[in-house]
Amino acid sequence: MTAEIISVGTELLLGNILNTNAQYLSRELADLGITVQRESTIGDNQGRLADFVNEAKARCDLLVFTGGLGPTADDLTKETVAACYGDTLAFDEEEWAKITRYFARSGRETTPNNRKQAMVPVHGRKIVNHHGTAPGAWFEQDGRCAVLMPGVPSEMKAMWTESIRPLLLERQNCTLHSITLRVLGGESNLEYQVRDLLDHANPTAAIYCKTGECEIRITARAASDEDGEKMCRAYARKFYDLLGDAVYDEDVAGLEETVVRTLKEKGLTVSTAESCTGGMIAERITAVSGSSEVFGYGFVTYWEQAKAKLVGVDPDVIARYNVVSAPVAAQMALGAAKASGSDIAVSVTGVAGPTGGDAVRPVGTVYLGAARGKTVYVKKLFVSRPDRALVRARAAQAALELVLRLAQGRTPAGTKPLTAAQQHDTAVLDALDAAFLSE
Amino acid sequence: MTAEIISVGTELLLGNILNTNAQYLSRELADLGITVQRESTIGDNQGRLADFVNEAKARCDLLVFTGGLGPTADDLTKETVAACYGDTLAFDEEEWAKITRYFARSGRETTPNNRKQAMVPVHGRKIVNHHGTAPGAWFEQDGRCAVLMPGVPSEMKAMWTESIRPLLLERQNCTLHSITLRVLGGESNLEYQVRDLLDHANPTAAIYCKTGECEIRITARAASDEDGEKMCRAYARKFYDLLGDAVYDEDVAGLEETVVRTLKEKGLTVSTAESCTGGMIAERITAVSGSSEVFGYGFVTYWEQAKAKLVGVDPDVIARYNVVSAPVAAQMALGAAKASGSDIAVSVTGVAGPTGGDAVRPVGTVYLGAARGKTVYVKKLFVSRPDRALVRARAAQAALELVLRLAQGRTPAGTKPLTAAQQHDTAVLDALDAAFLSE
Repeated sequence: MTAEIISVGTELLLGNILNTNAQYLSRELADLGITVQRESTIGDNQGRLADFVNEAKARCDLLVFTGGLGPTADDLTKETVAACYGDTLAFDEEEWAKITRYFARSGRETTPNNRKQAMVPVHGRKIVNHHGTAPGAWFEQDGRCAVLMPGVPSEMKAMWTESIRPLLLERQNCTLHSITLRVLGGESNLEYQVRDLLDHANPTAAIYCKTGECEIRITARAASDEDGEKMCRAYARKFYDLLGDAVYDEDVAGLEETVVRTLKEKGLTVSTAESCTGGMIAERITAVSGSSEVFGYGFVTYWEQAKAKLVGVDPDVIARYNVVSAPVAAQMALGAAKASGSDIAVSVTGVAGPTGGDAVRPVGTVYLGAARGKTVYVKKLFVSRPDRALVRARAAQAALELVLRLAQGRTPAGTKPLTAAQQHDTAVLDALDAAFLSE
Repeated sequence: MTAEIISVGTELLLGNILNTNAQYLSRELADLGITVQRESTIGDNQGRLADFVNEAKARCDLLVFTGGLGPTADDLTKETVAACYGDTLAFDEEEWAKITRYFARSGRETTPNNRKQAMVPVHGRKIVNHHGTAPGAWFEQDGRCAVLMPGVPSEMKAMWTESIRPLLLERQNCTLHSITLRVLGGESNLEYQVRDLLDHANPTAAIYCKTGECEIRITARAASDEDGEKMCRAYARKFYDLLGDAVYDEDVAGLEETVVRTLKEKGLTVSTAESCTGGMIAERITAVSGSSEVFGYGFVTYWEQAKAKLVGVDPDVIARYNVVSAPVAAQMALGAAKASGSDIAVSVTGVAGPTGGDAVRPVGTVYLGAARGKTVYVKKLFVSRPDRALVRARAAQAALELVLRLAQGRTPAGTKPLTAAQQHDTAVLDALDAAFLSE
């Protein structure tokens, strides 16, 4: 089965809004085993819309439209597509009552134009919009179909998952099951490692890279959801075998969600002491609903005085090793745990740039500390692209990874340990500092 | 002049990457006064590419391609477009030497396929790529043009600004000047206020809405940059007259940049005490390079104990008024200023949701405090859409606005003042609390 995605809207052609609908629908159609051959964006008011639709209809089985369902006179998408599929529109009392109620609730009155939105296919079917005023439409002729959905992403996605995807699955007489693996690690390296597993028909597997991690989505089409789940699980096993515990979770929104859940499961709490990330780690943890069970205190210690006052870093240690150093990261984490009484504490001190770097500590140099009990684990990170936002994002990601490993009761990879008792021992700190500087 | 934008790449049709190039080019072409009629995304390997190009060429003056310049055998975009514009390609020794050097630097060897990338137009012109291996191409026939650029956004944008935009300006015998106004305020309301000013040919004005603010970009085409600047300035005046000081700055990346610059200019420092925003305000401030001049201390006081311990909120005040209340926001801000020694301090306490709301404080209820000297200004914010990320983002934006107004020496709009001496006076706090609860 082949498809084209058509986004309707002059505001898209002007670049006023970013078209995220097309990407969403591309992924969804790929999951369904439907090949997207072309994506187009056209204006609301294009005289040649009918020509376009007729050509596209001849090229493929399914046309997926978003946008163009507005009440203004120049929104002719629904009428035009109906005609191309040998259909017409009729006024729908039920939809009109819904639109009228919607306006009444927000204290407005409908205009005659709004009646357009209550027009629905005579031969095809209307698609109920549970999240807005404009219903969608489904047209069909000689086995070729067209579906019209609203342009507002939240309305479109809801209509897609509630109505259109089930309809397409029913026609293919199958169900879909997906597992999304979340994997820690650099993009190009990871993509290279798994490349052979990405070329598969059913289940399909696709990789989406983000900062410091990737998402691998495995999707199976099967006769039953149970079969689909088994197929996904078996295929996921291949990724686990290849990637080991770099796969940190499944079907979560991000590392912070896994961190919060793991801390909850273990009955642990965490606190943060941040310099170059400036609050980003705390912000990510608290983005998770329910994080107040595991997180109570965060320190943004941007100045050296703040590091001393809030988390007890020794000013002499800063003077001796530099503020961006392993001993300072260690003291920040131990100090945050002490000041907050948390079970685990994580710290970051680094040079985010663009200024402030030197030969010993170029922009992108970051030290992290993660304390649990009487031990702190220190790690050095270097981000070679001198991009302030990237350095901060990678540092926050590395910090969350440290917290996860400590919560899991494991020694985080690539770290050097120091005990709380050693944190003021100059000989030990000298050795720690030297070990990192020679890396 | 009319144009179409064509993005080439199977990975786009699969939804593996989000197409941001099309939006960028749409805006740029609109600035140049060129009407974008259609945007298309097609696969790398499409047999009907020539048909598509011939049709599109007949429809408009300029075709702007991104992607399809890779070294693999099925990347036929350059050859196909050349043929459609009556041109051919020839091997370019200079480009080949560049590609070979590029590979050598990264320790790799070129493959025979890479020679394809060194092929350049015979009649048209090659476009030098200063940021990658693949040169771009410009083809022209009977006054109709096509330009091919790389798909990687950073390479594409560099090639556009360094080579293609100047070429198009030269043909139009003009220069471009832009001013981007940053405006505080809700989206739909603002769009409505300025709607009449957006319909203008030269300068053009376009509005792009973000969370809690909008960007208005004014662009003039003129014979000289001086004329363009004057035209933009005169048109910008109309927006200032309409919007007043909701326009908070020009040509900045965001409110945090203006806040940091203003604090620097005034020689002031700021600190933060955050509950529901969880570090987001500090994170935004420290995203600005050089923010360490004005920001040293941030407190993420997620728990009630943290509010007491770190910024001195009286537990009795929490018990009496609720942790999400005007008195608590006031004490948090005054306490943060005291604990850090900053000139200004801002605080946030609210119900971000999705759980935790009740009839008196539904999800989306946020109190903010902003202290300067002996006075704290308290504000209530209500975000009606119960979306955790949105509530937090709107709260952080409102907090930065309070800091800006205090740094400017002004009383922030919509706030109620309280003095430091009154912060433990139950009668005064009762009245403050009641005044907000009745809002």
